[in-house]
Amino acid sequence: MKTDLDTLMNSQNLDALLVTGSGQHNPAMVYLTGGGHMTAELIKKRGADPVLFCNPMERDEAARTGLPTRNLGDYRMQELLKAAEGNYPLALAQRYQRMLADVGVTQGRVALYGRAEAGASFAVFSALQALMPELTLVGETNDSLLLKARFTKDEQEAARIRHMGKVTTQVVAEVADFLTSHPARNGVLVKNDGQPLTIGEVKLKIDLWLAERGAENPEGTIFAIGRDSGVPHSSGNPDDLLRLGQSIVFDIYPCEKGGGYFYDFTRTWSLGYAPDELAALYETVKDVYNQVRTHFSVGEQCPVYQRLACDLFEAKGHPTIQNTPNTEQGYVHSLGHGLGLQVHERPWFGSNAANEDRIVPGVVFTVEPGLYYPERGMGVRLEDSVWVHPDGEIETLADFPMELVLPVRQA
Amino acid sequence: MKTDLDTLMNSQNLDALLVTGSGQHNPAMVYLTGGGHMTAELIKKRGADPVLFCNPMERDEAARTGLPTRNLGDYRMQELLKAAEGNYPLALAQRYQRMLADVGVTQGRVALYGRAEAGASFAVFSALQALMPELTLVGETNDSLLLKARFTKDEQEAARIRHMGKVTTQVVAEVADFLTSHPARNGVLVKNDGQPLTIGEVKLKIDLWLAERGAENPEGTIFAIGRDSGVPHSSGNPDDLLRLGQSIVFDIYPCEKGGGYFYDFTRTWSLGYAPDELAALYETVKDVYNQVRTHFSVGEQCPVYQRLACDLFEAKGHPTIQNTPNTEQGYVHSLGHGLGLQVHERPWFGSNAANEDRIVPGVVFTVEPGLYYPERGMGVRLEDSVWVHPDGEIETLADFPMELVLPVRQA
Repeated sequence: MKTDLDTLMNSQNLDALLVTGSGQHNPAMVYLTGGGHMTAELIKKRGADPVLFCNPMERDEAARTGLPTRNLGDYRMQELLKAAEGNYPLALAQRYQRMLADVGVTQGRVALYGRAEAGASFAVFSALQALMPELTLVGETNDSLLLKARFTKDEQEAARIRHMGKVTTQVVAEVADFLTSHPARNGVLVKNDGQPLTIGEVKLKIDLWLAERGAENPEGTIFAIGRDSGVPHSSGNPDDLLRLGQSIVFDIYPCEKGGGYFYDFTRTWSLGYAPDELAALYETVKDVYNQVRTHFSVGEQCPVYQRLACDLFEAKGHPTIQNTPNTEQGYVHSLGHGLGLQVHERPWFGSNAANEDRIVPGVVFTVEPGLYYPERGMGVRLEDSVWVHPDGEIETLADFPMELVLPVRQA
Repeated sequence: MKTDLDTLMNSQNLDALLVTGSGQHNPAMVYLTGGGHMTAELIKKRGADPVLFCNPMERDEAARTGLPTRNLGDYRMQELLKAAEGNYPLALAQRYQRMLADVGVTQGRVALYGRAEAGASFAVFSALQALMPELTLVGETNDSLLLKARFTKDEQEAARIRHMGKVTTQVVAEVADFLTSHPARNGVLVKNDGQPLTIGEVKLKIDLWLAERGAENPEGTIFAIGRDSGVPHSSGNPDDLLRLGQSIVFDIYPCEKGGGYFYDFTRTWSLGYAPDELAALYETVKDVYNQVRTHFSVGEQCPVYQRLACDLFEAKGHPTIQNTPNTEQGYVHSLGHGLGLQVHERPWFGSNAANEDRIVPGVVFTVEPGLYYPERGMGVRLEDSVWVHPDGEIETLADFPMELVLPVRQA
């Protein structure tokens, strides 16, 4: 949690954090500022409040964060650029050097965060490192201090994710009503004008219903039918028709306006009826979901549940990435992932040896077993997101029925 | 334009481009792939097609780009990680090394692009540089080759931006109708239930009407009234009421779904009536807009027009950043900026010595003079976006009337 930042900095021997980039859709900056319409720099010295450096035009947005602010204009970028003979990375590095000095950071270990252009980051921070050899710039990947802090969520964060869960499931209910309000003709849903409904039209409605509720959908929606539903991250072909008796994987992961907290949710539907083979896959996935849920135990390592899911699927004769690495059929991904300011964050559930993430109070994560058979034209995934309460209770953050078949009338 | 890539690589002595990150809301990746629901790596060797490296789960999205693809799974990250004893940046660097070798890049200059975590980019590319001393990794900032290619837009890109202009001005018209459909009581717009309308409610409608048209609004909207309209990038307080006779700066910059091309557009309104001082500011800004437009000449340097705008404002007695650097009153920003896969890209209009950008066929840019007096509680900005045709004609990409006062009836 955010209150752990200084403790984590101490344990990782970090003297300061430097965050760059937009105040929107930038998890590190949103986490430390609360977000805002600005492009800024933030430096947090260990034991001190973060300081926000902003452009004068964005001073109102910066002030709204409640953080102490500094004017980036005072660092006279044009003069630095002239002195650096047009060497932009050098001038930007010199500006960082002055900003760091102004908050009392002239040596020690400084970790870097924030979404930015990869090449510019490499150039500017390499220049800064050369300029300040007494400083060690630390670039973290999977083991980031901020991901460690964000590993657990407090009541307020959980409430925001729960709210996004409510928005998400309301929209899923709207989509179910929308689909079943259309009759079928020749095996596909049709509109009032007799023309077939398309996945593209359904997706437009999804975005509309999310916008009505003040949510954003920056990563799109998976709404994939038939063979495409058998490829986990196929987002679905907008021209596809809504055919009866085919699996539809509907995976939706919107966020708060401005790039705040996400939700993540999946249901699999079949319109009108379900072929036996699909119904059987569905029951297996639902059974694995329920069994895994029953076994969750606070304190246990996450990969234990990935192995459990694999064992359960294998017992039913399905290949998994445990017994068939790189398989594209059967159970082909991990059981879940953490959820917060990113759709995918810690804890991880992958069963590789390096993964030591555990289910502890405060974690928010998805539970999403699935079975995929693209060559048979079908796939099934069921996903809910949960929060572990301080007392260890595991709360499903948004309830929604698990029903495979959506009833359809004939036109 | 994209067809200039190899020529630009040649002139900048670059042997390959490496692009990392999401296929959505990531200008470099969207430019080279057309976008898609995937997280990928792309390498383009000079003279060859780009090659896309994707996760197997996202193979459908990758295939849809039409580019040759490779399976990231084949690079066996878990084995690399084990061999690197858990050193993630090193393992990722080794994976890049193999990917580069597989497309025939083992030496020369490789430029880096794509939105990613700044710290991870610094760590991974520093490790790659150490691993491959015969390679020079190039991180560009303001002078990026991709920004140079994106400096000019072809007919197809212009058509997409024009479409976004149509969507944007349709939504602006809806907002004007929405506001004027509300009567005023005690100097503020009120709803049917007699409660005052708020800026937050207007913004929710804006997002809804954009979503209806298949657009996204990832950077939010500036809808700022009174004193806030006098601070250029103040996005407006959601709790503020719609007061009559106050300047409203409405700056809207949505993009295509998935993070494609943007539009950028601003009008300033005053509800019911405009005080004389505001009306005078408005006329001055409109006059400067018109004069600048008359002077645009293909081949001329962009900063010439920033100086012209400053001269015109100064002649009317307003401070500008030309005669009063760092002023927060008067004309406080530059005349415009390029527009494309980012809201702000080349050409730049700032009048610093280093800026050599010119108005040439193919550029798309905004024209947005403004006057800001936060202490007097007002601000005015007028903005259109234009494309320069191959024959030099300067087309306003979306027409919309410039009227200060929106009529309001009493409740």
